[in-house]
Amino acid sequence: MSEHAPTGTAGDQDAIDDRVSAQTRELVTFASSLPAADVPERVLHESKRGLLDHLGVAVGAAQEPAARIARELAEELGGHPQAAVLGTSTRLRAPDAALVNGIAAHVFDFDDTHIPTILHATTPLYASGLALAEWRGRSGAELLAAHALGYEVGARVSVALYPEHYDTGWHMTGTTGTLAAATASGRLLRLAPGTMTHALGIAATQAAGHREQFGAMTKSFHAGHAAESGVGAALLAERGYVAAPDSWQGRRGMFAVMSTRTTVEDLVDGLGERWEIFRNGIKPYACGVVSHPPIDTVRVLAREHGVRPDDVRRIELRVHPLVAELTGKTEPRTGLEGKFSVRFACAIAMIEGTARERQFSDANVHREDVRALMSRIDVVPAPDVPHEKAVAVAELVDGRTVEVRVDAATGTPENRLSDADLSEKFHDLVDPVLGQTQASRLEDLVWAVDRAETVDDIVAAAVPAGS
Amino acid sequence: MSEHAPTGTAGDQDAIDDRVSAQTRELVTFASSLPAADVPERVLHESKRGLLDHLGVAVGAAQEPAARIARELAEELGGHPQAAVLGTSTRLRAPDAALVNGIAAHVFDFDDTHIPTILHATTPLYASGLALAEWRGRSGAELLAAHALGYEVGARVSVALYPEHYDTGWHMTGTTGTLAAATASGRLLRLAPGTMTHALGIAATQAAGHREQFGAMTKSFHAGHAAESGVGAALLAERGYVAAPDSWQGRRGMFAVMSTRTTVEDLVDGLGERWEIFRNGIKPYACGVVSHPPIDTVRVLAREHGVRPDDVRRIELRVHPLVAELTGKTEPRTGLEGKFSVRFACAIAMIEGTARERQFSDANVHREDVRALMSRIDVVPAPDVPHEKAVAVAELVDGRTVEVRVDAATGTPENRLSDADLSEKFHDLVDPVLGQTQASRLEDLVWAVDRAETVDDIVAAAVPAGS
Repeated sequence: MSEHAPTGTAGDQDAIDDRVSAQTRELVTFASSLPAADVPERVLHESKRGLLDHLGVAVGAAQEPAARIARELAEELGGHPQAAVLGTSTRLRAPDAALVNGIAAHVFDFDDTHIPTILHATTPLYASGLALAEWRGRSGAELLAAHALGYEVGARVSVALYPEHYDTGWHMTGTTGTLAAATASGRLLRLAPGTMTHALGIAATQAAGHREQFGAMTKSFHAGHAAESGVGAALLAERGYVAAPDSWQGRRGMFAVMSTRTTVEDLVDGLGERWEIFRNGIKPYACGVVSHPPIDTVRVLAREHGVRPDDVRRIELRVHPLVAELTGKTEPRTGLEGKFSVRFACAIAMIEGTARERQFSDANVHREDVRALMSRIDVVPAPDVPHEKAVAVAELVDGRTVEVRVDAATGTPENRLSDADLSEKFHDLVDPVLGQTQASRLEDLVWAVDRAETVDDIVAAAVPAGS
Repeated sequence: MSEHAPTGTAGDQDAIDDRVSAQTRELVTFASSLPAADVPERVLHESKRGLLDHLGVAVGAAQEPAARIARELAEELGGHPQAAVLGTSTRLRAPDAALVNGIAAHVFDFDDTHIPTILHATTPLYASGLALAEWRGRSGAELLAAHALGYEVGARVSVALYPEHYDTGWHMTGTTGTLAAATASGRLLRLAPGTMTHALGIAATQAAGHREQFGAMTKSFHAGHAAESGVGAALLAERGYVAAPDSWQGRRGMFAVMSTRTTVEDLVDGLGERWEIFRNGIKPYACGVVSHPPIDTVRVLAREHGVRPDDVRRIELRVHPLVAELTGKTEPRTGLEGKFSVRFACAIAMIEGTARERQFSDANVHREDVRALMSRIDVVPAPDVPHEKAVAVAELVDGRTVEVRVDAATGTPENRLSDADLSEKFHDLVDPVLGQTQASRLEDLVWAVDRAETVDDIVAAAVPAGS
């Protein structure tokens, strides 16, 4: 902090203002004060898995139009080369790197998910965290702790606001993701609790992102914007910019303005004993997590019951009404829109055996065999089916009926992706960009990140060799 | 556009997507297609007055902590020197200049106001517009038209959302101000209607800013952030970044998410015949516009009725309940907080004769004579008093009672600040920074801006000589 001593502000920024509500105070104090060494080992292992997954999705999507447009604009605007754009030879100022890497990591809809609230916390967390860790020369251990504690803050606020905030039409990754990113950024800037409170206030009043953007390039922008805003809020607070004391719980603060109901006790209940990161899911399929249980059902139909597309007269997919709403695009025009059509996702998964990024191509949504199978899939909203489950009832042309239930989709906490599965997903995404040798080196570095003095080696391994 | 041809997007960006709702389509088409030469002369004169007022408040506040912190952070991050920070020798990349100038122009709470909705449109409009006009070499006439049309979009959306959006706790300048800035930015980038629609979609999903921040540094941040986001959204759209088609009126779009009611007909009613800029107010006092009618009442008491502070036993201020709520800070600790205390503002205005920036000092809020007078002022919420009016009933120590009514506060459309009054306000703010000679030169250039081929001379005159 010495080179960025707060200036021009009233009062002591290290201590938390006495007007901050109790729950906010407790959570922010915890997130800013807990020594990295006191974060439990098994929590840090989850953060490490999150890093590998993040590098996979970000490197894999580095050349996608959304990420490329943002990157090229940042180059036109210029800035000190503080942090790398993963998977490219470009270096940008830290908030720009956070923006571009955040867009890239979300563009495939393949990043991890806090299952109870559908918050994609890791994208804003590592998009912001890696950029600041690189710029400020922080250790791997400090980066992991920043992720773990940022995840805790983002997820706990999400739980407190869910489902009302989400039902209003907010995209959690854009809104509470900003708080997650600001927390991780504040950790890496080593902000004192009072300063961290201001960072989180400046972040709260920038929280944004409407669900209308689902299916558009702008959905990924939300994730990048959350990362960028989190970095910016922490950097402003570091220099002494101050927010209203009770920016979250105040009468006109984030919670009251952006949700019709908030259960503030969720901010602190079991804090330090129960970690939200254990409710994180890592995606096997490159689309919204709510589509995963139905995709699993058709894959089970194909693999365990030998059902082929031509065998199907009709499949009734019974899903929670929210799932039907979120993935109800009936006529996807592009691969991206296909991610919001559960009928397309199930059809392609049955035909090709999985639903990774390459399955969601523009060509595939227009294929005749896909369209034909989609026309035989009915999505039935079923309030009695929780959103993490799904039922498929297949009527076959031979007269048989096969019913498949999925209670815990692949990649969820109850049906975890193993470290080996995760590695396979990583290589699927990264090998085409960096080559298998360098991808393996990058993976090895991630598994040892807790012993790295800086993140420089990881960053070097995440950009094309020779650049 | 040729150097920034859209790439990597589906479909034709010049035309507006057929899924855009009718009112949005009509307003965006108007704002992006109307030739600058077709904006009525008297509208452009208001935009010119707005430019003079903007330069005054921005230059005058260039060294305020909020603006200085943001400027120094931008310097640390670096970038191409595309646009000037008004009143300083610093040049930043265009979005950063928009951020810093937007913060500066709002930090005194002295910038102009769309009276029906309390939107401070001009700050995000010129903070974004000047930066882009300078960078891209646009003419003064093009800048004025960008302001006029951006004002129209920002104000019409505000009218459509008011008061529900505001009552929810949103700060209009942060939210609809972002749309205003994106419109002005899109005009200066000469975006076609389809591309402008995307710019306004990317802007809408970033709209942010909670009223909890009133009284904190972060309130000014909202205005700067709106400017920065507007510039960024337009630059992304220029390069082909696309938003959801119906980002405003869609089921989960900005209007539905951020307001409980929207009167969409206000977006287009009388479009091109009736201009919202004629409902703009220019502030004579350096605080929120809702405090102006009560300040006028005590100034009338003092000037027209000869009432001195010691004569007062009690003053009952009858104001709209919203005014009482917004300016109800009973124990201001700083000059900034004093702007949100109508009792302080009225006390100091009665004692010093006015309530310009220098009256809202930290020292003044602690003065004994001020505190004593404040304790004799009662604020009474009166639902029958509209927020643009106020009544003061003064009981004097000699037993007399004097009642003063203000129906149209100084600076409102019904009681306009003359061009001469505006000039006086401008010099009060700018002379201490630039010196009187240069301030006069800057003023002359503004009155002739419609004939300027670029804004370079204005920018040069708005930064300290020799820098």
